[in-house]
Amino acid sequence: MTTYKFLKNKSVGIIGCPFSGGQAKELEWNVEFDGHHKLTELRPAEDPNIGKLKKPRYVSRVTEAVSKAVESHLKRGQLALTLGGDHSLALGTVVGTLSVHPEACLIWIDAHADINTPETTESGNLHGCPVSFLLGIAGKVPGFEWVKPFLKPDRLVYIGLRDVDRPEKKILKQLGIKAYSMHEVDKYGIGKVVEMALDSVNPKRDRPIHLSFDVDGLDPTVAPSTGTPVRGGLTFREGHYICEAIHNTGCLVSVDIMEVNVNPLLFDEASVFETVTIGCSLIRCCLGETLL
Amino acid sequence: MTTYKFLKNKSVGIIGCPFSGGQAKELEWNVEFDGHHKLTELRPAEDPNIGKLKKPRYVSRVTEAVSKAVESHLKRGQLALTLGGDHSLALGTVVGTLSVHPEACLIWIDAHADINTPETTESGNLHGCPVSFLLGIAGKVPGFEWVKPFLKPDRLVYIGLRDVDRPEKKILKQLGIKAYSMHEVDKYGIGKVVEMALDSVNPKRDRPIHLSFDVDGLDPTVAPSTGTPVRGGLTFREGHYICEAIHNTGCLVSVDIMEVNVNPLLFDEASVFETVTIGCSLIRCCLGETLL
Amino acid sequence: MTTYKFLKNKSVGIIGCPFSGGQAKELEWNVEFDGHHKLTELRPAEDPNIGKLKKPRYVSRVTEAVSKAVESHLKRGQLALTLGGDHSLALGTVVGTLSVHPEACLIWIDAHADINTPETTESGNLHGCPVSFLLGIAGKVPGFEWVKPFLKPDRLVYIGLRDVDRPEKKILKQLGIKAYSMHEVDKYGIGKVVEMALDSVNPKRDRPIHLSFDVDGLDPTVAPSTGTPVRGGLTFREGHYICEAIHNTGCLVSVDIMEVNVNPLLFDEASVFETVTIGCSLIRCCLGETLL
Ligand SMILES: [Mn+2]
Ligand SMILES: [Mn+2]
Ligand SMILES: [Mn+2]
Ligand SMILES: [Mn+2]
Ligand SMILES: [Mn+2]
Ligand SMILES: [Mn+2]
Repeated sequence: MTTYKFLKNKSVGIIGCPFSGGQAKELEWNVEFDGHHKLTELRPAEDPNIGKLKKPRYVSRVTEAVSKAVESHLKRGQLALTLGGDHSLALGTVVGTLSVHPEACLIWIDAHADINTPETTESGNLHGCPVSFLLGIAGKVPGFEWVKPFLKPDRLVYIGLRDVDRPEKKILKQLGIKAYSMHEVDKYGIGKVVEMALDSVNPKRDRPIHLSFDVDGLDPTVAPSTGTPVRGGLTFREGHYICEAIHNTGCLVSVDIMEVNVNPLLFDEASVFETVTIGCSLIRCCLGETLL
Repeated sequence: MTTYKFLKNKSVGIIGCPFSGGQAKELEWNVEFDGHHKLTELRPAEDPNIGKLKKPRYVSRVTEAVSKAVESHLKRGQLALTLGGDHSLALGTVVGTLSVHPEACLIWIDAHADINTPETTESGNLHGCPVSFLLGIAGKVPGFEWVKPFLKPDRLVYIGLRDVDRPEKKILKQLGIKAYSMHEVDKYGIGKVVEMALDSVNPKRDRPIHLSFDVDGLDPTVAPSTGTPVRGGLTFREGHYICEAIHNTGCLVSVDIMEVNVNPLLFDEASVFETVTIGCSLIRCCLGETLL
Repeated sequence: MTTYKFLKNKSVGIIGCPFSGGQAKELEWNVEFDGHHKLTELRPAEDPNIGKLKKPRYVSRVTEAVSKAVESHLKRGQLALTLGGDHSLALGTVVGTLSVHPEACLIWIDAHADINTPETTESGNLHGCPVSFLLGIAGKVPGFEWVKPFLKPDRLVYIGLRDVDRPEKKILKQLGIKAYSMHEVDKYGIGKVVEMALDSVNPKRDRPIHLSFDVDGLDPTVAPSTGTPVRGGLTFREGHYICEAIHNTGCLVSVDIMEVNVNPLLFDEASVFETVTIGCSLIRCCLGETLL
């Protein structure tokens, strides 16, 4: 039995942004669902680019609101579970976690590093930038003054990377951020990689853990309905193993399942069903479902 | 070259229950095929449920007959190869093996533990219960008095589990039965898992081995035509690796390939062909086919 | 940053035999493309079998011409990249490499050992025989006198084998050639296997490396458009890992990507596209593309 070091009772707060899902099955958690946040109401009437950044005010308002929701659940001793939506939301969820647990570490599962700065981004899409804002290396962007406290680079670790931009590689090296790409997953196996990742950001297993899981970290054959799929990703089993092993630390306080895209114009029903199903299944593992 | 510790010559007895297959290719075994057992003749005219158990008399008669067939082959120094058919048949095959080799150990490859008792089973289907009968924890069920000797819990090990009922998990823990689920396969790799499994039930490699291989232990993409497929299973290569490594011990005396379903109303031809093909291929590995 | 021990500048010579492909993307290599070699012009008017060997004069002339092309690139300090075409071409590429780097070792990725001799071959197809000619165990075959220097058996290592003929297995054992079949890939993981393979032929990482990559070493689901596919092969990721790890030694001087078959009568467009794409991707890894 896992002892939860940073949670009261076994209670999970779900923050839907904006899709439905994630049922805890027979796992004895109390589940409180916030309802889908009406995030579109936060859309400003006008939102011109700031530099290359697209929709900066909208993203800022939404992520700030999400940070408050996460903070509120964590303060009540609940595990915060956020269902996205694009990965810029993690700017909100991680700040929310750090507000309550400043000593927390961040485990980022993704094909991408999402660490472009407003300077280095080519597309200007903010879901490629949240980590640079979280680390405080994004510079001053109007509207994002609320982002604090910052995350220290040695509290961040990546698993699953395989499509990282050249300036992002430079940032990772300069800041000495630990990252386990698919090369390392092949080299060491997922069991060893998760152990090394935990050792690097949480050596004594005494820090709260925020897990931010972009489903495009999984192979596209496993999680097809996502916006920026990349071949050669984590298998069905590796994805579940990560969640099981992190749950087993007893330190998990906040989980994001991100980049599940349910748009019927972009993806067929089977792809959406498969991707939502695996999202739910990952969540159950985060909440303690085990095979034995 | 593998030295066979418990077999005479290189001779295999095939017990078809009830499908054809399993050719030994260039492996220098003498093959004796019993013909398909006419198991349906053993069907009783009436067979009402006993408690929740369905078709108890039919299963009892068939499995007892199968146990005699296995016993007969083993007594002549042949390897007994049984082709199923549902996994309740293993009640017969394992008793047959234990009659000749009371010190034998059992390696059970399966997505399921098949260890429900007449009390804990929800469906009442006996193919979910054979292990509880084998261990002598099923209680007294009329018609199953012939089941003996019993298997000791420390002679049983599972590989591939990923869909285990709650009462089954409890039994596994209470009896201290060794089980390697897909979580452990991911964590350690199949090479290490097979080694640990053998170490736990056959530390000196001096006990005869009965391998009971339910093809639903494999991933459904690999072995689709089976009754209760579960995602996240053993790969094509992992399945073969298990059979190769167990053959290499020189201790293998009895093999079941189970739950291959060839019903054309349930599965398309390609699925059946694929599943039968991999069944044959696993058998060849059990008989010593190697890549090098 | 990898230091290249046996190359000048970062320059690659491409020898197309006979298909186009393999672009180096952002990797700062100078690329010199020979153009497709007009190999069909070398076809003799008459070419009766010699023993069982088919088209022996044609293969001899073509592979000798290819050996000169490889030799020429290597002498100028370029990496030689040869795109096939059937694997008999490696007879030429490896001789070309050995002419310039007699101390080179050979890493052969393949489902097959391609080590049949003119005596043991059943089909008489020379793409199943190049390794026996390279080792000097093929006996005297008219027209192949140019094949020298020979490769020593302890400079050759295989990865990915899973369809090896009986006489080939015998040769491998007699000569003590190191071979890692899929059984070993499963047992140890690809990380350990590549390390062991390098340790066996290049223990101090001071010998030039020739990598001969038959795409049928990959699983047919990954590289479908090839002539002799075999199930249970290397995954997408394992294939890339091999190329990344060999590049990282700084010793790679010559690369073959072989058995990509683009014949539209044999394969549909999607299969060809997929296979050519992975071929290009493997090449980029050989030239230093990394995930981080
Ligand atoms: Mn992301
Ligand atoms: Mn991503
Ligand atoms: Mn079963
Ligand atoms: Mn089963
Ligand atoms: Mn080849
Ligand atoms: Mn081949």
